[in-house]
This record gives sequence, structure tokens and C-alpha cells, in this order.
Amino acid sequence: MTFSKLLLGRRLANREGEERKIGAFEGVPAMGLDGLGSSSYGPEAALAILAVTGAAGLTALGPIMAAIVALLFILYLSYRQTIAAYPSNGGAFTVARENLGTNASLVAAAALMIDYVLNVAVGISAGVGALTSALPSLHGYTLPLCLGILALLTLINLRGTLDAGRVFALPTYLFLASFAVLLGLGLFRVLGGEVEPVIAPPPLRPASEPLGWWLILHAFASGCTAMTGVEAVSNGMGAFRDPAVKYGRRTLAVICASLGLLLAGIATLATTYGIGAMDQTEEGYQSVLSQLAAAVVGHGWLYYTAIGSLLCVLALSADTSFTGFPRLCRTVAEDGFLPRAFAVAGRRLVFSVGILYLAATAGLLLILFGGITERLIPLFAIGAFLTFTLSQAGMVVHWRREASREDAERSSHKTRLIINATGAVTTGIALTIILVAKFSDGAWITLIAVPVTIGALTLVRRYYDRMEAQQRAVGPLKLVERNPPVVIVATAGRSRLSDEALRFAVDLSPDVMAVHLTSLEGENDRDKVNALRESWRNDVQVPAEAAGLLPPRLMVLPATYRRVEQPVLQLIDEMRPKMPGRRVAILIPELIKRHWYQHLLHTHRARRLRARLLSRGDPDIVVISIPWDPEPEVQRRRRRRNRLGL
Amino acid sequence: MTFSKLLLGRRLANREGEERKIGAFEGVPAMGLDGLGSSSYGPEAALAILAVTGAAGLTALGPIMAAIVALLFILYLSYRQTIAAYPSNGGAFTVARENLGTNASLVAAAALMIDYVLNVAVGISAGVGALTSALPSLHGYTLPLCLGILALLTLINLRGTLDAGRVFALPTYLFLASFAVLLGLGLFRVLGGEVEPVIAPPPLRPASEPLGWWLILHAFASGCTAMTGVEAVSNGMGAFRDPAVKYGRRTLAVICASLGLLLAGIATLATTYGIGAMDQTEEGYQSVLSQLAAAVVGHGWLYYTAIGSLLCVLALSADTSFTGFPRLCRTVAEDGFLPRAFAVAGRRLVFSVGILYLAATAGLLLILFGGITERLIPLFAIGAFLTFTLSQAGMVVHWRREASREDAERSSHKTRLIINATGAVTTGIALTIILVAKFSDGAWITLIAVPVTIGALTLVRRYYDRMEAQQRAVGPLKLVERNPPVVIVATAGRSRLSDEALRFAVDLSPDVMAVHLTSLEGENDRDKVNALRESWRNDVQVPAEAAGLLPPRLMVLPATYRRVEQPVLQLIDEMRPKMPGRRVAILIPELIKRHWYQHLLHTHRARRLRARLLSRGDPDIVVISIPWDPEPEVQRRRRRRNRLGL
Repeated sequence: MTFSKLLLGRRLANREGEERKIGAFEGVPAMGLDGLGSSSYGPEAALAILAVTGAAGLTALGPIMAAIVALLFILYLSYRQTIAAYPSNGGAFTVARENLGTNASLVAAAALMIDYVLNVAVGISAGVGALTSALPSLHGYTLPLCLGILALLTLINLRGTLDAGRVFALPTYLFLASFAVLLGLGLFRVLGGEVEPVIAPPPLRPASEPLGWWLILHAFASGCTAMTGVEAVSNGMGAFRDPAVKYGRRTLAVICASLGLLLAGIATLATTYGIGAMDQTEEGYQSVLSQLAAAVVGHGWLYYTAIGSLLCVLALSADTSFTGFPRLCRTVAEDGFLPRAFAVAGRRLVFSVGILYLAATAGLLLILFGGITERLIPLFAIGAFLTFTLSQAGMVVHWRREASREDAERSSHKTRLIINATGAVTTGIALTIILVAKFSDGAWITLIAVPVTIGALTLVRRYYDRMEAQQRAVGPLKLVERNPPVVIVATAGRSRLSDEALRFAVDLSPDVMAVHLTSLEGENDRDKVNALRESWRNDVQVPAEAAGLLPPRLMVLPATYRRVEQPVLQLIDEMRPKMPGRRVAILIPELIKRHWYQHLLHTHRARRLRARLLSRGDPDIVVISIPWDPEPEVQRRRRRRNRLGL
Repeated sequence: MTFSKLLLGRRLANREGEERKIGAFEGVPAMGLDGLGSSSYGPEAALAILAVTGAAGLTALGPIMAAIVALLFILYLSYRQTIAAYPSNGGAFTVARENLGTNASLVAAAALMIDYVLNVAVGISAGVGALTSALPSLHGYTLPLCLGILALLTLINLRGTLDAGRVFALPTYLFLASFAVLLGLGLFRVLGGEVEPVIAPPPLRPASEPLGWWLILHAFASGCTAMTGVEAVSNGMGAFRDPAVKYGRRTLAVICASLGLLLAGIATLATTYGIGAMDQTEEGYQSVLSQLAAAVVGHGWLYYTAIGSLLCVLALSADTSFTGFPRLCRTVAEDGFLPRAFAVAGRRLVFSVGILYLAATAGLLLILFGGITERLIPLFAIGAFLTFTLSQAGMVVHWRREASREDAERSSHKTRLIINATGAVTTGIALTIILVAKFSDGAWITLIAVPVTIGALTLVRRYYDRMEAQQRAVGPLKLVERNPPVVIVATAGRSRLSDEALRFAVDLSPDVMAVHLTSLEGENDRDKVNALRESWRNDVQVPAEAAGLLPPRLMVLPATYRRVEQPVLQLIDEMRPKMPGRRVAILIPELIKRHWYQHLLHTHRARRLRARLLSRGDPDIVVISIPWDPEPEVQRRRRRRNRLGL
């Protein structure tokens, strides 16, 4: 208990939930790391596609990034509206369910889940990739490093979103500040006509292909990864304190504005300085942002601060999923499409099961792909754009419905509808481009994973529906006059344990039977049995008769297969026809085990017998456990006192 | 169920125990492999010590092996008597306990246990070592091969001793037959004056040290490993069918005679042909027996048959421990020095826990020492000789006691006493020599392990004694007139599950209270609660009153920390002072889970609540589990029918 308390913090009460909610200051680190981190790999991914065209490709970067920034602006406006319309939970799943129906909502849920898991894997592996290219001696430890960071993130998030937001605030704001200075300085110089880099970037690769439409579309599709993570705020609305809409919008604005400025700045400076993407597998690789920072300020302290904080943001961008995924799963579970456990707030008021599930699947993905970013990227972004499209389409339906209401301000709703419709169409087009351009690179895996996930969700829901129907109690409670149950006490000789059980048994019913099993040790023990019969007559039956009770019978049964369950079950089966309508209650005295070694030193017969009896699933067979504590009373009282201090 | 049946065979009934017992034919493979296998490493270990003296050492081999064979003969006579005196279990533990007291018996038990574990590790690693020197390509797989053979042996032994004896008969008798032919042929030629080998052994290493007493004692100590395993028959007496003494003696005679002849033959031929021990780490290593076989018959089919069956015997010599160790543990457990589970015959009437424990510890040893024989050998043999000495000393006391009885035939007892006394003294001297000669090579590890094991055994016994004292029921059962218990039913809304529990509750006591927990999902659900209260009034309380019962109360409690245990325990604590002397029975309706996925789809609250309530260890808090099966009746009946077919 003390260990998990140290690791996870004390258990929080429900009423503390409100105090654990966050504002915009913690919101940006808690939900924006994914979006901000993608500014690093988005432009680089686009440049990597354009690299084959040499210097010509660089001229296309500006228009491509402009399109992406425009798309980002449309998304910002769209999500701003979504947040206001669904202030408690504006995730694509909810929006699609409310407006497009269950099937669309399941597509959104599946797409989001897959993207969240991928984001964890991609974020961590990108961070570790950047770290190992800075410190090549760590290269052999890529996978252990990835898994270590994953474990750390999991632990921090199990402690709660508030803690996560606070822990990650430093690197996030440091990253924003240092790149603001860096890009600002660079743009100031460039606009002032000073285009000479402090440290010149390595020369571009020679052109091997002409710049064509297909390449531009491909580069656009890859660059779109820069936009993943924008939906995080709408999914995480439940984490904001009141007024949630205000804090949510502020968080979204900070994230989108920062991301847009970053992308615009990077595109401008990269074009001016002639910075291209290098091959990550080659010696002396430098990322686009590293070349850019060196070009603006050289290898000074600002360079190292910027690159260092970028590494942190990349590795921690996985954290966005830890905020969004468990909340999404909770909503889906409340609708019955995921196991109930996903909807239960854990020790620290976060949805621990979702967090652990996310960590497990992302860990599996990291292990399967060896922690290499490049292998994961093609699977990515499809989920995000599918989500964008569904969410905006849902909002279009939402505004149409609102507009049809009597008291509606038609004009304002029309503006909102147009904004969301534009969002839906543009993200839909982007999704199509991404699907076509990256299909054979790995996008097909995501296309298979989505329907498989939907299938699993549907099966879970169907199971719950069936259970619900089977358990539903209709009408008033039916009471039947019944005789008291026949009680069977499982004994192993006479002991204080079995005496305790016998006392309960004679209170419960006049028909008490004690079962003693022989040959459990594979040998006959006739002397012991005779002594037991003798003691039973004198020490149990005589006092019971004196107290005016029917004397409990002693049954000695052979355990032919050295299992306790089998003779007891057989006895019940033989007794049942003789006592129609009566229940059988099996009393099992249980020794309380307080220390690990006690589990080795005692057989587990009581537990096994209980499990087997319960698994019969016969409501007329009831199992009664009578605990018995060998610890002296004094010690027990001390223990209870300690426990009350929780 | 089907899988374990396929793997382990069907579960055997107690009455089948007699049919599973073995005679001498199965006895030799089941208990003699250790003894016979040591003929391979005993002489080789002695020659390895003598190697530094060059050809001079070879002259010492004859006398050393003669001493060992003489010792073996004394041991044979001693154990022949022990078997007759203790026909059901003549292990050193029993003999020492009966005659020398508890402390001596614990020393014997600890020594035997350690030697059994070591024998498994040494046998398997020696076998794999021989195999990999024959097939060098397997050399990289030493440890996996060791662990694979260990797993196979474990499985075969879990199926039963009878099966083990039958499976191992072929290689054992093939080994005996081929070496009988080989050594017979060699001796026939040598005695006929034909001393030229078919294939000459490699030349001996040049002498680097003179032959002195210390070296001879050291060689004797190493050679004594040839005698390990002789005690196996006395330990395994319980496995023989009637007349056990006859079969036991016959088995012992076959093993000792074969071993003695093997050792004598090997010593004679090795001396004649000038065969020395080679360095195992050097290229072209050949074992002594391989050189010897080649010298007698060349590399023909007989050579390969002999060497092949030797490999099998070596690898399977580990099996002797699988027969002896579980039986020893059973005896020790029956005395309360080991957990009870060691004394329970498993599915196939063998002591499965002992087998699994042996496999686990030997596996650990193999992993720790990398599966290399040389590193394990010095730890070995001490346990065996400690056992020999204690067993013989115990027999001396036994005969003295027998002789002092009125009706004793003094003269025959005196002879027996002298035989066992000679055995005790000679093995005691051998033990001293081994301890001194091999102390710094690793014997000290065994010297530490023995007292540690004794300490553990003593602690286990002390625990059981304390438990026994605490549980002992003295005098007649005390019955107190009590009111029926207060019943608390744990509900989650109204369902057929909770209806079932309620019906049982109202039969049990007039004081029934249903507890419904809110905020389990961390949110308030006021509407649901109101609906439940309404339904409770109409559908539960009204029918209960109509049936003349006190209406069950509904308590709605907040689960502040989202745990079911905490509010229920708190309610009990608050109720207790108001109802002195009354028990509290908590009724937990449990959904029967029949499929693995159901464990994922349902929360484990019922189980957790039961566990927490039981762990209070308060005999006034009784837990009643009411099973409820969502499966339709038809399916359930079919399942029950299948189960009856066991």
C-alpha cells in the first residue's frame, strides 16, 4: 500500500475532482504537445518527399505549407465552434454519435483510438531518434529508451492530468519561447535583407526527378502529419475547470497560433537558407530544425536550448494521447462499446484502465517496429483526418438541426454551418490525398485496423445488451415460502475453525451435515477417522442435543481423486432429489492469510472448493465463507487501527 | 482440461496406486540411472587429478578404484540390511529420525535434497556436454538443450514412475549390454596377453608433479562421485510393489554389481592401454570411456551403440532424482518440515509439487552455472556421503536397540551391526577426505547450503506447530443462543441477480438491508437513484410486506473513493455497536463467468469485496456468495452432462 501510495500518490475522493481540473496554462502542455511537436516532423516529412527534385522542390515548400496553414486555420475555426457546442465533451465520437448516428461514431472512435496509440509510439520514437542522433553512443539502446519513457509517461499520467500538465509546462513553454526568439530573429534578419546563414546548411542533394503534381500531392500528404493533435482539445474538454469553454478555446487558440506561426516561419526560413531534408540513415544527419537553428544563431546556447526543449516536446508529445485516449474510452465505455472498467475513475480520478491499455498497445507497437519512427509514420495521420472530417460533418448536421428550431438566430447558424462545411470538405480532400499517396507505404494497415476495431466494439456492445436483457428484473420481487437450507460444513477434523463454522450452521438451519474427507494425502487414515467420530459424538452432538438442536451429522467421504470438490459436488448431486425446493448452503471455514509465505504453507482447498461450487452457477447452491483469523486479537486490533488511517 | 489430459494422462484414483507400483525390471532404470551413469564421470574425475603425474598416475588408478569398489561393496551390504529393516521407506531421513533423533534427520534431509538437485543439474549438463562434444555444431545451444531435457524429464515424471521406468528401460539395458560386451571382450583379450589397442589412445600428458599422498587422496575424493546414487533404492522403496523387500534388494544388487563391474573393468583396461583424462576445453577432447571403447573395438557399430546409450544414461541419470526427491519431500512434509502440498499425491499419484520444485531449482542451478558440468561437480558428492554416513550410523543404533530386546537373535544382529558400523566408518572417512580435498573447489557452498536448508525446514515446522496450537479445539462445542444475523445485500440496481440474493436474504433473517453504491463511475447519477428508490418501494417492499416479512431497507451510499469495499466496511463498522452479539452476513450475488472474455468485460467488484471482507478476519462477518448464471438452462444442463464424464 505504501509503495503504490509513494508511486501514484494518495487515493483521491470524488469531490476532489473539481480541484483537479485544469486551465489554459496547464492545458497547453497537457493537450498541445502532440500538435506542437508535429511542427518538427511535418515540414521535414514534406521536404523528404521533395528532396529528389533538388533545389526545385524548395520552391514548392512555401505553397504546400501555406495550404497546410490555411487548413489549420479552418480547423481552428471549426473546432472553436465544436467546443462551444459540446462544452463537456466535444470529441469526434460524441459529435458523430449525436449528429451522424452510431455507425459514424464507431468509425470516429476506431480512427481516434488507432491514431492515439500511433501517436504515442511515433512521439516517443521520434524523441528517442532525435536524442540518439545527438548522442550516438545511445544508439544501441533505442528500444529500451523508448519503453523507459513510455513507462515514465504512464506513471505520471496515472498520477493525474493536473500533475502531467504541471510537469510538462517547463519544456513546453521553453520550446515555444526559444523557437519564438529563433524564428523571430531569423525572419527579422531575412526581411531586413540579411540572407547569409551563421552556419551554412549542408548542400542540397542533386535533383534526380522533375517536380510534378504527384510529388507535390505526396509532399502535401506527408506534411499533413503536422496537423495531427489539433483535435486533442475537443476530446479533453472534460479536464477543464469552469468556465470550460473559455479555457478550452484559449488553449486551442494558443496551440493553433503557435503551430501556424512555427510552420510559416520554418517554411520561410528553410526556403531562404536552402535547407533540405537529409537522409536519417546516413552519417552526419541533421534534422531540418537543427539546420535551421544553426543557420540563424550558430551553435550557441540558444541553439542547444531550442534543440533540447524540442527533444523534450517530441518525446512528451506522446503524452497528449494519455490525456485524450482514456477520456475517449470512457465515453465509448459509457455507451457500452468498451468494457465497463474503462469508465471507472481510478485512484487519482483518471481513467487508469484506459491509460494502462494505451501504454500496453503502444509498447507492443514499439516492440514490433523496433522503435523506429520511419516505419510508423505512414500508418499515422489517416486516423486524424478521418476524425477531422467526421467531426466537421457532424457539426454541419448539428447546425442544420439548430437552424430548423423556432427560436434560432438563422444568420449566425448559417455562418457556423459554412465554416464547419468548409472544414469537412477540405479535410475530406486532404484525407483522400493522404490515402492515395501513402496507401502502399503502410496506410493500408490502418485501413484494415479501423474495421477490425469497429467489429470488436460492436461485439462488446452486443454482449452487454444480451447480459442486460438476461439480468433485467421485471415486475415485483417474487417471494416463495421456503424451508431453511440444508447446510454442509466442510471440515478437516475438529478445530476452532470448524467450530466457528458449526456455530453459524446450527443458527442457520436445523439440517446440518459436516463433511470430512479422507485419503486426501493418498493414504488411508482409519485411526484418525475413528478418533474424529468419537470426538464428534461427545463434543459436538451431545452439546447440540443439550441445547435442543438436531445434532449435526458427520459424513466421512473418500477423496478418491485427492480433490475436495469432487466428493462434495457428488454429495450435493445425490442429496438434491431428496429435498426438492430446498437450497444447499456450503459453509467453508477459511483461514485468513496475512503473509505471503502463508500462501505457500497452506493448501488452497477452501478457495478451490468455493470457486468450483460457484462455477456450477446453480442459485440453489450458496457458498458461505466464514473467516477465521489465527492472529491474536491484540495484533488484529492494531492492524485495524492502522488501516483506518487509510 | 483436454490439454492437460493429453499431456499428463487421465487423473488416477487412489485405488489405482497399487497397480502403478514397479518391480526390479522398471526399478533399475527408475532408480539406477544415477548410479550407473556415475561410472562414466567417477573414473574420469580421478584420472583428471592424476593427469599431472603422467604415466606414474596410472599406476595409482588400480588401487584407488579398488578402494572405491570395496567401499561400494560395503555400501551394498549396508543398504541391503536397511531395505529389509525399513521396507516401506528406508531413506536416510527416516532411518536417522528413528534412531538418531530429529536434528540428525534434518541434516540427512537437507544433504539429500541438495544432492538430488545437484544430481539433476550435473546429470543433464554431463549428458549435454557429451552430446555437444560428439556434435560440435550444437555447442552454442548448451543451456537451451539442458533446459529442454529438464522439461521433458519433468513431464515424463509428472505422468508417473511406472511410465518413467518403462520409457528409460531401453537405453539403460542397452547401455549395460553394450558395455558388458565391450569390457568383457577387452578383458578377455588382455588376460589372453593381447594388449595392443585397435585404436591407440592419445599419448598421456608429460608428468609435471610427482605422485604423492595428497594427490592420491584428491583423486580418491574425486573418484568417489562414482558412488553417488546408490542410496536411491532405499529412498524409493515406496514405489515397489509387494514383496517390496525382494524387488528392492534385487534392484540394489543389479545396480551395485553392474557399477562395481564397470568400475573394475574400466580401471583394468585404462591401466593396460594407458588411457588418461584429456582436457575438456581443448580441441579433439575424448572422454575416458570413448578412448576405451575405441581401444577395444575401434570405431564400429558397437562403439557408437555404447557411446550413444551412455549419452542417454547420463542425460537420464537426472531422472533418479525425480523418483527420490518427491518421495523424500513427502516424508519430510508429513513430519511438518515442508509445506503440506509436498505430501499430496497429484493427478497421476506422484508427488507433483516435489517434482515441480525439483525442476525449478535444478533449472535455476543450470541457468546460474550456464549448464557447465565442471563448475557443478565440486559441490556434488558431499551430500551423498553425508547421507551414507548418517544412514549407516542410524542403522548401528537400530541394531543395538533390536539386540537389547528380549527375543532377539543376538548373533545375527551383531553381524548386521558390524556391517553397518563398517559402512558408517568407511563412508565417514571418505566424507572427511572429500571435504578436505575439495573444500576450496566449491565444497564450501554445500557446507553453507546444508545449514540454511535445515533452518528453513525448522521454520516451516515451527509455523505449523504454532498454527496447530492456535486452531486446536479443546472440549465440547460451545453453543450460544444468537439472534439471526443482520443481512446486507450488495446490489447494483434491481436485477435478476439481486432478486435471487434478496430471496435468500429474507429467508435467512428478518433484518435485511440492501446497499446500493452511487458515484462508482465518479459521477452523480441522481435520476437513477430516484428511479431505484421508487422501484424498491413498489416491487420489493410491498410484496415483502404482503408475504408478512419486514420490508428490506434500501441504503444508498456514495462510493467516495470509487471502491465498493470502503463504504460497505464503513457501514458495518457503524452498525456493529448498535447490535451487540449479532453477526453480519454480507450477501454478494455473483455472475458466473464461463469464458475468458467475460473476465475482461465485467468489473471484479464481487470478488474484490469478498476478498476484503474475508481479510478482515472477523468471524462475526460472514460472506455469502450467491451464484447466478446468465447462461440459459438448456446450455447449462448440457455442460453439466459433459462434466460428469470427467
